[in-house]
Amino acid sequence: MKIAVFGTGNVGDTIASKLVSLGHEVMMGSRTADNIKAQAFVEKHQGLASAGTFADAAAFAEIIFNCTAGMGSIEALTMAGAGNMNGKIIIDLANALDFSNGMPPSLGFANTTSLGEEIQRAFPDTKVVKTLNTMWCGLMVNPAMIHNAEHQVFVSGNDAEAKEIVKDILKSFGWKDEYILDLGDIKTARGTEMYLPLWLSIYGATKSGAFNVKFVR
Amino acid sequence: MKIAVFGTGNVGDTIASKLVSLGHEVMMGSRTADNIKAQAFVEKHQGLASAGTFADAAAFAEIIFNCTAGMGSIEALTMAGAGNMNGKIIIDLANALDFSNGMPPSLGFANTTSLGEEIQRAFPDTKVVKTLNTMWCGLMVNPAMIHNAEHQVFVSGNDAEAKEIVKDILKSFGWKDEYILDLGDIKTARGTEMYLPLWLSIYGATKSGAFNVKFVR
Repeated sequence: MKIAVFGTGNVGDTIASKLVSLGHEVMMGSRTADNIKAQAFVEKHQGLASAGTFADAAAFAEIIFNCTAGMGSIEALTMAGAGNMNGKIIIDLANALDFSNGMPPSLGFANTTSLGEEIQRAFPDTKVVKTLNTMWCGLMVNPAMIHNAEHQVFVSGNDAEAKEIVKDILKSFGWKDEYILDLGDIKTARGTEMYLPLWLSIYGATKSGAFNVKFVR
Repeated sequence: MKIAVFGTGNVGDTIASKLVSLGHEVMMGSRTADNIKAQAFVEKHQGLASAGTFADAAAFAEIIFNCTAGMGSIEALTMAGAGNMNGKIIIDLANALDFSNGMPPSLGFANTTSLGEEIQRAFPDTKVVKTLNTMWCGLMVNPAMIHNAEHQVFVSGNDAEAKEIVKDILKSFGWKDEYILDLGDIKTARGTEMYLPLWLSIYGATKSGAFNVKFVR
């Protein structure tokens, strides 16, 4: 598939590199066409990798991964242009962590809304699927790194068909079908985004990001 | 020990009954001394059980369990009277679920604060420990009901000694030491309280409360 990855940070680079390794054509999108990290990604993965502005990448792709910092995601997607994204799936991995008032960070959207919902509201003709935002990026693309891949990834979104496509991508990353938990519509992104403060506390108490939650019964 | 349990709902009754079964003297506190559910609790557990107002129970006890509905907890504790609680441990199990705007509920305190913090702020001479608020009450007092009791309970609070006493109570409920995770000070109650929307989504998707989270690495 032709896939856009918005964001050149650790999450974007990890996702984009994994997608290339799976044979997808990946354009990394950022604010400027000459972003240094995006250029480094292209040089490292010659053939399938390319780079451009958010708008370039959105126009190129069938599917868009939002790996931008959550507090800037709406702005980044606005730069991409609704016309370049309409009808497409936006896989939203971002968390709107707001560090402006010190530690612990608060969430830019919470309680009565979520970043996932805000993106869906701002771009109503896209299909937003929230997933993978509950863990360190190393685990996103390599769940077998811990506990035999027997731990949870969540999916939230309004479009059933779009969620099936996202689940297939998750399986290609190594996620086991029985650990992919479809929570329901995009409103359920509140749950996975509001889980972040607990994640951050555990990360703080244990000093390692290589953990995840498993639901047991 | 002499323990007060504030609240006559499912959580209060479950906790109070377990404490009596462990040999503690338990006074169930509520708004009025003649609460019908509290009277039923006393009749069922004659000898160790008693009932009274929040103030009666607070004055009686060495330790107070807050099992009131979270949106009314500050009011209930205010009725109990700071003078009856000062120097004592308040074990706060409540979640401030606000159903006034329909489903899903929002939280009355979130993101930049939490109910646990608000209680500590309102009653600065008590020792608030947040725990057990991340699960169905049946599991709180019987963790071995699922997965060999190998799943998580969290503890948040400012007073290290108070947390040790609470951990001992948790162990008496059947919690395994290695699954009692001390997250840090009372601010970390934000994490466990903000986990509730995810808990509710999973409960909605699976239709059973007998589940809990286990962190794996």
